[in-house]
Amino acid sequence: MSDKSELLRFLSQVLPSERIITDTNLTEKYNSDRTKGFSGSAGIVVLPENAEEISLVLSKCNEMNEPVYTRGGGTGVTGAAPPLDMGLVLSMERMNNILEIDTRNLTATVEPNVITGVLQTEVEKLGLFYPPDPASLDECTLGGNVSQNAGGPRAVKYGVTKDYVLGMECVLPDGSFIHSGGKFVKNSTGYNLTQLITGSEGTLCVMTKLFIKLLPKPVMEYDLLIGFSSLESAIDTVAAILFKRVVPSTIEFMEDEAIRLVSSYRGGDIPFADAKAHLIVKLDGRNQDEIEYQLEILKSLPEIDETKMMIARTKEESEQVWQIRRSVRDSLNHFSPVFFAEDCVVPRSEIPSFIKSIKSQLNMYKVNSVLFGHAGDGNVHIDVLKYDMDDAKFKDLKDRIRNMLYNEAISHGGQITGEHGIGYTRREFLERAVGKYEYSLMKQIKHVFDPNNILNRGKLFF
Amino acid sequence: MSDKSELLRFLSQVLPSERIITDTNLTEKYNSDRTKGFSGSAGIVVLPENAEEISLVLSKCNEMNEPVYTRGGGTGVTGAAPPLDMGLVLSMERMNNILEIDTRNLTATVEPNVITGVLQTEVEKLGLFYPPDPASLDECTLGGNVSQNAGGPRAVKYGVTKDYVLGMECVLPDGSFIHSGGKFVKNSTGYNLTQLITGSEGTLCVMTKLFIKLLPKPVMEYDLLIGFSSLESAIDTVAAILFKRVVPSTIEFMEDEAIRLVSSYRGGDIPFADAKAHLIVKLDGRNQDEIEYQLEILKSLPEIDETKMMIARTKEESEQVWQIRRSVRDSLNHFSPVFFAEDCVVPRSEIPSFIKSIKSQLNMYKVNSVLFGHAGDGNVHIDVLKYDMDDAKFKDLKDRIRNMLYNEAISHGGQITGEHGIGYTRREFLERAVGKYEYSLMKQIKHVFDPNNILNRGKLFF
Repeated sequence: MSDKSELLRFLSQVLPSERIITDTNLTEKYNSDRTKGFSGSAGIVVLPENAEEISLVLSKCNEMNEPVYTRGGGTGVTGAAPPLDMGLVLSMERMNNILEIDTRNLTATVEPNVITGVLQTEVEKLGLFYPPDPASLDECTLGGNVSQNAGGPRAVKYGVTKDYVLGMECVLPDGSFIHSGGKFVKNSTGYNLTQLITGSEGTLCVMTKLFIKLLPKPVMEYDLLIGFSSLESAIDTVAAILFKRVVPSTIEFMEDEAIRLVSSYRGGDIPFADAKAHLIVKLDGRNQDEIEYQLEILKSLPEIDETKMMIARTKEESEQVWQIRRSVRDSLNHFSPVFFAEDCVVPRSEIPSFIKSIKSQLNMYKVNSVLFGHAGDGNVHIDVLKYDMDDAKFKDLKDRIRNMLYNEAISHGGQITGEHGIGYTRREFLERAVGKYEYSLMKQIKHVFDPNNILNRGKLFF
Repeated sequence: MSDKSELLRFLSQVLPSERIITDTNLTEKYNSDRTKGFSGSAGIVVLPENAEEISLVLSKCNEMNEPVYTRGGGTGVTGAAPPLDMGLVLSMERMNNILEIDTRNLTATVEPNVITGVLQTEVEKLGLFYPPDPASLDECTLGGNVSQNAGGPRAVKYGVTKDYVLGMECVLPDGSFIHSGGKFVKNSTGYNLTQLITGSEGTLCVMTKLFIKLLPKPVMEYDLLIGFSSLESAIDTVAAILFKRVVPSTIEFMEDEAIRLVSSYRGGDIPFADAKAHLIVKLDGRNQDEIEYQLEILKSLPEIDETKMMIARTKEESEQVWQIRRSVRDSLNHFSPVFFAEDCVVPRSEIPSFIKSIKSQLNMYKVNSVLFGHAGDGNVHIDVLKYDMDDAKFKDLKDRIRNMLYNEAISHGGQITGEHGIGYTRREFLERAVGKYEYSLMKQIKHVFDPNNILNRGKLFF
């Protein structure tokens, strides 16, 4: 740990004192995000208000070889945000302005710390739509979403965060500004730096402005909860729905164990409690006819038993459906507050085989697990529960189970994380996940942007 | 130029002789693509049939510092494909197999030289849809499209090539294989190499397999030709259409001069010949109701005069509409076979101001120009005509005009090329277009992948 006095002297020249935090009582909240069992240690926390200040801070830290941890909403679950080794935290909290909502070009220009849900609300007032909907959308930020390439249930129809990043302004570690893309969707002018930086988890540069793509807002939505006699038939139904040209905005699944856990937590208050799998399907459209048309197609599928279908046509009914899905996390926390959560991704059709394979191995380890997630896009949430297992044993099992899960995801043609990222907690697995040549390219690209490795040092790479 | 005997000896060990071409009568066709006034010089042309052969050839060339030019359909217009300095051409023509169309995951796995139109036809037989539709789709290849991040009219609703690349297998110059992504849309596992390689114009690695995203095929389409009294009102109408939640798959425009040229070429056989701008709008949907619903919304817009709207509901009627749009190129070739074509992109709303500004400057140069293109996505095609101007004068003007166009595109918040790429003919403009720091990052990334600069040497960078 370096002596911070020179850095502090510099910071006090470029930032007002109330935006430089050193009191450990006040820096403490910057030490962690939502990653279970992991926190770091912040040295200085600074609160920049514009790109110029960021440029000055970065160039000084770069010169001094001082690590910098850029922070958004702090809702990550893989330890991408927490500072290591008393590093400097660049908290973007004051850069939270929506600079423009452009109704002619269907774009928003935002500072990185705009809360995702706030942008959604604001654009919806104008009849527009920002589709990505990570679970933490009322607290997470667009900058954080872009850094992690956050997903969410609507990915089936609308894609993930990266599909809505049209361009950005960033600051490199040496303080220079870069611009990439803009308010247009077509661009063949050199390498796509926008998409390289998206998902780079704060390791390449600091984003200071984002150009976001918007869509016209669909007017109506229905939510369906459908029970199935097996996970296979549920997943087969997903393919059948899409094949009939119905693209729901969301297709979530809950397997057996998730249904039983939620049922037990809610005292049996859950439809189709004896089903072996649930799908929750959200249909959207410009008017009722469009949605009813899609619904009729779903009803006509041999895979779907109409008596096992609950149809939510109003906001209140939808709320009932989604409460079931949201109860998964609540019931996990209720029955086993300690667990670890993985979010592997596999080709959609591989979900049953992937789940079958990991379930049989999890049984061998004698641990309980709950599986649910995004059937439409192959992103499977796997929560492994501690219950009353001995701490040391659970920790030991955790590493072995993660290895097993990642191996299975990759051997099923998938990847180790669909939306949560690598961060700190998965960095030792990245090389095996992507391959040694790919890992080497990534490390060298990191070196191109950040030769002194000051940005999110200790994250992503091992 | 190096002595090729050692390389030839090596090639003859790893490839059958009929797949090594050295006869200049036979290599000649590999010297050029569709770039006006530019051709290169091929030394050896090799026709690999699989990734292993490519790996062997690349690693030898890398060791010998021999430049390699990977070639797809040869339909590019910025000189990205033609070999320079007697370099080796890696013609992918034999790697044209569709390896799989996966109807459950809605993906295709293809070798890079599958013709784009062939993939479209094959997937449509199964009720699926590959949306990107570059003008040369019957001759261009998916590998070429991915290399250039090709666009097309359908970008308004469906995006461009990059939005359909889920993953790839590639070979690096040293012969090692890399894999990125796969048959899934969600991925937060390290840097997005897939999107970095997409649009890199063959300068980073050689793609040997592509994972392509497919959609369910819309069943019906209507095409509309609409006349307007000014370009401004046409472009305002685009924003109004989108704002009413109608997202056409295509919104093309033709301005004044383009209409007059086509009208003159077709002997007046063009609807609304006195209009100052045309929009061609393609609506699609799952059934007639969905399209008629969209059509009614368009008719209700105050910006649209129903008497100036031609509605094509059948294939034959559509053909009539699109013949007008396609006549632009034919009439250009008829009246002035020599011209140069630019494809700047600006935010959609900036089209009128961009066009007004460049038109007034083109008038000062006393050249004729025709403007048309993709109103829905801001991609403006600018064809500048030579007519009977003196060759030397036209050449001199060309450089000055391109500078002017690129400056105007950038100052209107756009970029110099929306879908054609940089290639050879625009390489001297790239640094100014993207900025010096961005250019430096790109060159360093190039060096990471290709330290000896063997891949497409002399392209993209200056």
